Amino acid sequence: MIAKQIIEKKKDAHALASTEIREFIAAYTAGDIPDCQMSALAMAICWRGMTVRETADLTDAMMRSGAMLEWSEDGAPTADKHSTGGVGDKLSFVVQPLAAACGLRVPSLVGRGLGLTGGTADKLEAIPGYDATLPLARFCEIVDTVGVSMNAQTAEICPADKKLYALRDVTGTVASIPLITASILSKKLAEGVGALVFDVKCGSGAFMKTREDAEALARSLVDGAKAMGRRAVALVNDMEAPTGYAVGNANEVEEALDILARRDAARHAETAELCITEAAHMVALARDIPLEKARKLARARLEDGAAIAKFREMVAAHGGDLDAFEKRRAKRIVRRWKISAMKSGIVEKIDAAAVATAALMLGAGRMQATDKIDHDAGILLAVKRGRRVAVGDELATLETATRGDALESAAAQLYKAFAIQHATT
Amino acid sequence: MIAKQIIEKKKDAHALASTEIREFIAAYTAGDIPDCQMSALAMAICWRGMTVRETADLTDAMMRSGAMLEWSEDGAPTADKHSTGGVGDKLSFVVQPLAAACGLRVPSLVGRGLGLTGGTADKLEAIPGYDATLPLARFCEIVDTVGVSMNAQTAEICPADKKLYALRDVTGTVASIPLITASILSKKLAEGVGALVFDVKCGSGAFMKTREDAEALARSLVDGAKAMGRRAVALVNDMEAPTGYAVGNANEVEEALDILARRDAARHAETAELCITEAAHMVALARDIPLEKARKLARARLEDGAAIAKFREMVAAHGGDLDAFEKRRAKRIVRRWKISAMKSGIVEKIDAAAVATAALMLGAGRMQATDKIDHDAGILLAVKRGRRVAVGDELATLETATRGDALESAAAQLYKAFAIQHATT
Repeated sequence: MIAKQIIEKKKDAHALASTEIREFIAAYTAGDIPDCQMSALAMAICWRGMTVRETADLTDAMMRSGAMLEWSEDGAPTADKHSTGGVGDKLSFVVQPLAAACGLRVPSLVGRGLGLTGGTADKLEAIPGYDATLPLARFCEIVDTVGVSMNAQTAEICPADKKLYALRDVTGTVASIPLITASILSKKLAEGVGALVFDVKCGSGAFMKTREDAEALARSLVDGAKAMGRRAVALVNDMEAPTGYAVGNANEVEEALDILARRDAARHAETAELCITEAAHMVALARDIPLEKARKLARARLEDGAAIAKFREMVAAHGGDLDAFEKRRAKRIVRRWKISAMKSGIVEKIDAAAVATAALMLGAGRMQATDKIDHDAGILLAVKRGRRVAVGDELATLETATRGDALESAAAQLYKAFAIQHATT
Repeated sequence: MIAKQIIEKKKDAHALASTEIREFIAAYTAGDIPDCQMSALAMAICWRGMTVRETADLTDAMMRSGAMLEWSEDGAPTADKHSTGGVGDKLSFVVQPLAAACGLRVPSLVGRGLGLTGGTADKLEAIPGYDATLPLARFCEIVDTVGVSMNAQTAEICPADKKLYALRDVTGTVASIPLITASILSKKLAEGVGALVFDVKCGSGAFMKTREDAEALARSLVDGAKAMGRRAVALVNDMEAPTGYAVGNANEVEEALDILARRDAARHAETAELCITEAAHMVALARDIPLEKARKLARARLEDGAAIAKFREMVAAHGGDLDAFEKRRAKRIVRRWKISAMKSGIVEKIDAAAVATAALMLGAGRMQATDKIDHDAGILLAVKRGRRVAVGDELATLETATRGDALESAAAQLYKAFAIQHATT
C-alpha cells in the first residue's frame, strides 16, 4: 500500500478499495503513516465524499483498532441510542433506562462535553458518587445484571477515532458526513449491540444546522450501520431551541428524574413523548416487534415506575447516591440571576446556541478538554416556545456555584436568545 | 491568525486574505504550523482553487521566504525562460544564450531531474568541469559580464517552496494549478527578472496531459507574473513526442550544440525554430519591441554565431571544457542497442512518456533524489513523427555506460513508443 496513491485516488474522485481503507487506517493508528498524509486524505474525503461501502469500511477499520464488546446470545437483545448532541439534551437518562425496563440490555458508552455540547458522562457525575469511568469488564457486568449502564468511553474503545478526531479538529476536516458517520458508528458498533437508534439534532444548537445536512447524516448513519449488519433507525429532531427546560449538568439530571418520576407531567409532556418514541424504536428494532406495540410497552414502563427503578439501579451500581442528589437539590449553594420579559407577546424563539453560550459562561461546560465543570452551573428556562408572556414574567434563571462574576454578562447573553413577537390580545 | 480557521475558510470556498496567506506560509516555513495543517490547506486549495490575487499572494509569500536577486537599473534588460519540463527538452541551451546574444541579461536558475523529466542542471554537468552549483554572488557576476548563466537553484532561493513541495509530493497535492503556479513563479520571480517566457509542455511526456490543463496553467502563470508586476508570455508546446532527437543528458547538450553551430540545419530546423520563437518572445518583452523584429534579431544572432559564442563563454565561466566535451563525443565508451522498424509505413506516434521511461531504465534519470545519473545514457531517435520507414530502417539507438544489463528490456520498452501506420506507396 502506498499512502500517497490512496490519497490521490480519493482526490481524483475514485472509491477506495476495502483493503486500501483498512491498511491506511491501521498504518495511521500504528504511527506508520504521518499526520500530514492522514489530514490530506481527510480533506480529500471532505471534498469527494465516500460511498456507503467505503464509509462502512472506514467504520470497520476504526472499530477494529480497539476493544469490541460481545454479548451472550441467550441474554436479552441489545440496543443503544446515540444523540449527535444538542443543548439541554437529557433524553438518554430517560430513554436508556426505559429501554432496559422494556427488556433490553443497553450498554451505553457516552461522551464528555466540549464546546457548546454537554457531555452525558459529565452530567451523570453531578450525582454524588457516580463513577462514569468504570473498567469495561464492570460496565459489561452491570449491563448483564441491571440491563443498562452509562459509562464514559474508555481508551480501549476505537483509539483510531481518538487519534483521527484530534487531527480533524486542528485541520478543518470535522465537517464531513462520511468522517462523522465513521466516528460515531465505530464507537457505537464497538459496543456490540444489535440495534441502534440515532437522534440526529438539527438547528442552531446542533452541529448540523440545516435539515438537509441532518437528513444526510441520518441516512449515512443508518446505511453504514446496516452495511455492518446492524438494525438501525435515525430520527431527525429539532435543536433550534433547547430540549426541555434545564441546560447544564445537575439540573438536566433533575429534569430527567422529574420525567421518570412523572412529576409535573403536563409541563414535561413534550420531552417525555420524545423519550417514549426513542425507547420504542430501540425496543421495536431489538425485539423485532411493531413500533406501535413497542410504544405502548415503553409508555407503560415509564408510567408504572419500571424505568425510574432501572435508573436507580444503574446509579447504585455505579456507586452513585441518588437520595443525596435529590436532597442536595433543595439546598445547594449557588448564585442566581433571573431574567424577565421586557415586552409582552408570544415567545417565538429561544435560540439554543445562545442559551448554550450563556451556560458555558456560567461554568457548565468546557472550552478546552482540561477545563473543570461546575455541575451546579446552568440555566432553567421558565417558558418554552409558543408561550405568551407579559412584561415582567420570568423567562429564565441563571445559576452558578463558581462564576458569580460572569452572571451579569451571561444574563445579557441569555437575553439575546429570546425573540418575543407582539401579539394583539 | 488561527491556522484551522484559514483551512476551513478555503475548504468553504472563500478567497483567503493577503495577510492570511502571508502569515500561514511564514509560520509554516518557520515550523510554527505543522505539516498536517499545511497538507490539509494544500488539499483544500486543490479542491477550491485560488483567485489570481490569492495565487499572487501565495507566490509572493514563498518568494519572500528566501533570497531575492536584484539587477542594476542601468544594465541590459533582464529576462528568463522556464519550461514546465518535457522529454528531450534541450531548448534552454539554445534559447538562453541566444537571448543573451540579443542583448539581454539572462539569470537562469535551473532544476534537477526527478522521475520522467530531465533536469537542465544535470544535463549541463555532462560537460567536463561545468560547475552548476556556483554561489549566488558568482552566478550574478557571470550574468552581468557574460550575459547569461545557468546554475542550479541554491538553498537560499525559496526555502518555503522546497519545504512545501516535499510535503505536496507525499500528500497527493502536486496537481493543482495555483500550487504549481506559485511553485514555479516564486522561484523565477526570485531571480529578479523583468520579463518571463513560459514554455508549458502538453502531452504524454509532460505533467499537463491535456491541452485544457496546459492552457489553464499557461494563463495562471501569466496572470500571476503580471499581478506581480512582471511582463510575461506563455507558449503551450506539444509534448506527445520528444523534442528533437536526443533524450538523455550529454546527447541533449550535443544536439543543442549542433543547433547553435548550425550543423545539419535541415535536420534540426523544427527545434531551431522553437528556440528562435522563445528567444524572440524574451527579447520582445524585455526590450519592449515588436515580436517580428525580435524574431529577426534572434534568427540573425543564431546564424551569425553570436549565440554559440555566448554559450561557450558561459560554459567557460562555469569552469566547463567544451572542447573536451566535443572530443569525448566521438570516443565515449557506451554499450549500444539499435531498434528497427518491423513493418513499413508512416511513423504516426513516438510516445514521449514511453521514450522517457526507456531512458530512465538506461540510467539517464533519477527515480529518487539520491540516484546518480549516467550522463552518457540515453536514446537517439533516428526518425521523427511523420517520417516514412521501411522494414529494417533504424528507429532509434539506445546507449548506456552503466546499465548494460537493462539494454534489452529498455529496447523493448522503447519499441512500444512507436506507432507505425501502414501506408500504400
